[in-house]
Amino acid sequence: MSYSSDTLCTPGDPSLKSQGAHTEVLERMGHLTQSIEEHIGQLSTGHQQLEAHSPGQGPGEQEALLSHQMGQVVSLLQSETNGLLPHPLDSRVDIGAGQPGPFTKPTSDCETTLVSHDLSNRGNDISTFYHTHFRNYILYHEDKYHEDKNPSGFINLATCQNKLCTDLITERLSREDMNIIEDTLLQYPDWRGHPFLREEVARFLTHYSKAPAQLDPENVVVLNGCCPVLSALAMVLCEPGEAFLTPAPFYGTFVFSTSLYAKVELIHVYLDSEITEGNTRPFQLTVDKLEHTLLEAQLKGKKVRGLVLTNPQNPLGDVYSRDSLIEYLEFAKRYNLHVIVDEIYMLSVFDESTTFHSVLSIKSLPDPKRTHVIWGTSKCFGICGFRFGALYTHNKEVASAVSSFGYFHSISGIAQHKLCRLLQDREWIDQVYLPISHSRLQVAHRYITDKLKELQIPYLHRGAGLYVWINLKKYLDPCTFEQELLLLRRFLDKKVIVGTGKFFLCKEPGWFRLVFAERYPQLKLAMDRFCQVLAEQQLEKQPEDTMRM
Amino acid sequence: MSYSSDTLCTPGDPSLKSQGAHTEVLERMGHLTQSIEEHIGQLSTGHQQLEAHSPGQGPGEQEALLSHQMGQVVSLLQSETNGLLPHPLDSRVDIGAGQPGPFTKPTSDCETTLVSHDLSNRGNDISTFYHTHFRNYILYHEDKYHEDKNPSGFINLATCQNKLCTDLITERLSREDMNIIEDTLLQYPDWRGHPFLREEVARFLTHYSKAPAQLDPENVVVLNGCCPVLSALAMVLCEPGEAFLTPAPFYGTFVFSTSLYAKVELIHVYLDSEITEGNTRPFQLTVDKLEHTLLEAQLKGKKVRGLVLTNPQNPLGDVYSRDSLIEYLEFAKRYNLHVIVDEIYMLSVFDESTTFHSVLSIKSLPDPKRTHVIWGTSKCFGICGFRFGALYTHNKEVASAVSSFGYFHSISGIAQHKLCRLLQDREWIDQVYLPISHSRLQVAHRYITDKLKELQIPYLHRGAGLYVWINLKKYLDPCTFEQELLLLRRFLDKKVIVGTGKFFLCKEPGWFRLVFAERYPQLKLAMDRFCQVLAEQQLEKQPEDTMRM
Repeated sequence: MSYSSDTLCTPGDPSLKSQGAHTEVLERMGHLTQSIEEHIGQLSTGHQQLEAHSPGQGPGEQEALLSHQMGQVVSLLQSETNGLLPHPLDSRVDIGAGQPGPFTKPTSDCETTLVSHDLSNRGNDISTFYHTHFRNYILYHEDKYHEDKNPSGFINLATCQNKLCTDLITERLSREDMNIIEDTLLQYPDWRGHPFLREEVARFLTHYSKAPAQLDPENVVVLNGCCPVLSALAMVLCEPGEAFLTPAPFYGTFVFSTSLYAKVELIHVYLDSEITEGNTRPFQLTVDKLEHTLLEAQLKGKKVRGLVLTNPQNPLGDVYSRDSLIEYLEFAKRYNLHVIVDEIYMLSVFDESTTFHSVLSIKSLPDPKRTHVIWGTSKCFGICGFRFGALYTHNKEVASAVSSFGYFHSISGIAQHKLCRLLQDREWIDQVYLPISHSRLQVAHRYITDKLKELQIPYLHRGAGLYVWINLKKYLDPCTFEQELLLLRRFLDKKVIVGTGKFFLCKEPGWFRLVFAERYPQLKLAMDRFCQVLAEQQLEKQPEDTMRM
Repeated sequence: MSYSSDTLCTPGDPSLKSQGAHTEVLERMGHLTQSIEEHIGQLSTGHQQLEAHSPGQGPGEQEALLSHQMGQVVSLLQSETNGLLPHPLDSRVDIGAGQPGPFTKPTSDCETTLVSHDLSNRGNDISTFYHTHFRNYILYHEDKYHEDKNPSGFINLATCQNKLCTDLITERLSREDMNIIEDTLLQYPDWRGHPFLREEVARFLTHYSKAPAQLDPENVVVLNGCCPVLSALAMVLCEPGEAFLTPAPFYGTFVFSTSLYAKVELIHVYLDSEITEGNTRPFQLTVDKLEHTLLEAQLKGKKVRGLVLTNPQNPLGDVYSRDSLIEYLEFAKRYNLHVIVDEIYMLSVFDESTTFHSVLSIKSLPDPKRTHVIWGTSKCFGICGFRFGALYTHNKEVASAVSSFGYFHSISGIAQHKLCRLLQDREWIDQVYLPISHSRLQVAHRYITDKLKELQIPYLHRGAGLYVWINLKKYLDPCTFEQELLLLRRFLDKKVIVGTGKFFLCKEPGWFRLVFAERYPQLKLAMDRFCQVLAEQQLEKQPEDTMRM
């Protein structure tokens, strides 16, 4: 951590407006939520078995009824507390990577998501999960900031988008070579991705990953985003109910990606912020931690099939050293685990002193047949709207099996064409795009970290990614996930969206992720709003001190 | 049927080269296949229940082993019969809508699809299903016909693509208004689809479906294809193991769409070609048949949640009358079934005397909350490469639940922009595109049906769709699915791909679907190859007659 790690957490202040009452109700909520969760858990486990025997009004209906009844109790409680409380299914979100935003209309939300008799129980569950997980994202889309048209709209520092080079990419995408319409682009494609794009991806990754030998286009599968690739890998590598290990904090939507279709659990390898003997830097991933979590999971009867890593890490910004990477890969080999490395932030290493090592650059991979890379252009090229993700694997059977999902997760031919042209233009990428992109990332990173230093907010100083992982514990009293949620609510009230640690499955409350790859005027406005919220929060915590000043 | 319904099936001819031996081996294959299928069926049923109890080496492993062993026996048999026989998992394809093409390398195919220890059992199953179902499609992509570069490549009359107006659509897509790159197109979208596109889809469908009132953009969800929409509907309307009814023959890939993720079964309402008292025209869909199949399924303990219709029908080309449509909807209402109507061929009604009635045009829908429409531009605009499908439902809860799938099935922003511009340009659609498209469809339909008449091949004369449903029974001896497959093999040997009745889950062997929306030179060449195959087939059946001529 670059900055003082004083978290400045202060003990509870009795003058804090009704926070004590909130906490009490939050606790009651917690018990209820847990109770619902347990019931649903039990029923879900028994669900498919029971459904197979009695397709009639089975436990599914009971589940809906129970959820509804509990939901009503919770709604009552919620209405008493001015809609400040989490969703009744937020406990699921603890497991399920929620960004539990506040309720605009808590009661009706409950009703729409829990009580539709036109939907199956599965349909209700998915809809509830989705709308809880993406609540703030949906809010943002309903009320986006616009300089002229909607200056009081939301600015989103939670969703990881790179808006710093939209000018460059727009210019490149507008050139003539982009707008060629060939017949094949209009027809059904090879479901693995058009050959021209797979060839270009193989060439591109060979170069930028520093692969020791030319990568094979036959080992590339192109789908409409990296999460569909992760979902497809979970489908083909695991049976339902099996698991992957992944270090936490991690990108919360991975949970949605592995659970929605594949029913694969992500077992969290919890990382600590505190520096100890086994933890030479905050949130360090060690083989000990991996091994400990794996053995613990196995003792509980879990069947762990793989390890999911993100490098550069999201939300930490850590870039794994070559040695660390090999250690993780060797650990996985010892336990016959697949390793899936998401390298989507590969070209977002903006600090020149930081060296990124792609897993594809390692000459003698410990277990090449079980090492799979996910990559896409969303982050580094700032074009997440293209919906492009690629798998590279040395295992032809895995590539072949993942290609089965192309029919459901394919990208428009015209988008494939543009992507190919973009990746082909190495001169522009190397001479224009990457230097400017990295320099703008540096400037934005400096701006935001200077602000954080001013506010004496600890953060992880890293040279990669589009975000910074910060510690707001000193603003939480007590330092709990409930208070983290209440602080988020304050940010939302001021129309700035930030990512909570809870969304990233962080074990410790008080951490947040700020995306800084936002154009300056918006980033400045967002940070003004952010600082204002923290000032008010501080004011409420220490009103007497402030009044004395 | 417009043409003589003499199917001209002739009894077995002893001179037919080794067909008797083939038939015997095919029968043995059939028993083996059935045996594998039963084992797999039993294991699959018990699978999830057992896996939950013993996550170790369970029935899944046994299943793989069994499949492998049986596969080897089958491979041996296959090698004896020159690779002419179906895949060991083709019996699954009977249920699962296979286009069981021939084996180029049957043994190695078996091995790659069945014995990967790096994949889960589920992964192996999906990969096998996909590669079996899409085998001819994959073959086609490996060896596509090209006038200059590959004149002996495959011409594909099996995959339903509209290539007749590529010139028009390419010209329209190349105009300047198409190539605008706005920031929002590059960023993460509203996962329901960009608002501008949903608004345009609502306006478009209001107009072309003749809706009695303006349709609501909030009821539109845009995903990357119509099959993802069907899959998402199956996910949210059904529990795993539940079912939809659908009249057969139908588009075989629906089985993949409802089973891959949703595990929803399609129960076939079998239609007959023969004209009887209850069947005033070939393959007529009646409420009696729907009701009979539903009650029979319910007796077997199936939980049927809905009815899936395609209008205009694929592969029959039938366009439902308004009265028929209302009868089906009322039947569904009586039994609390959802109705999903796939209207993707809506604007492909090329015969002026045929009137299409969208379900959205019906003023008093029997059960509007359970009536859902799927629509896309792939067929009528010949742009299946765009990967665009839309749901329209009056049920906001269903729309909301289906939007949960947008994250995994979204389309590129730039493609959404182009689609919106295309749908907006009503003048071009009404004055240029549709008149020319319909006229070219008429010409191609006339060309192909004239050929069929010459050959005295019975077919369904319909004025909608891009295909014609033909009866080749007279070329099969005996008239079995095995012989249907052997005939397909002959077509493939001559590098023309056609759709077998089996792919469309037709109950009667001998039917095929020919797509005629192919540009003239290719269509002519394809039909030349087609005629040559039939001539040879005829020759082998009646060598003495021919020699006497």
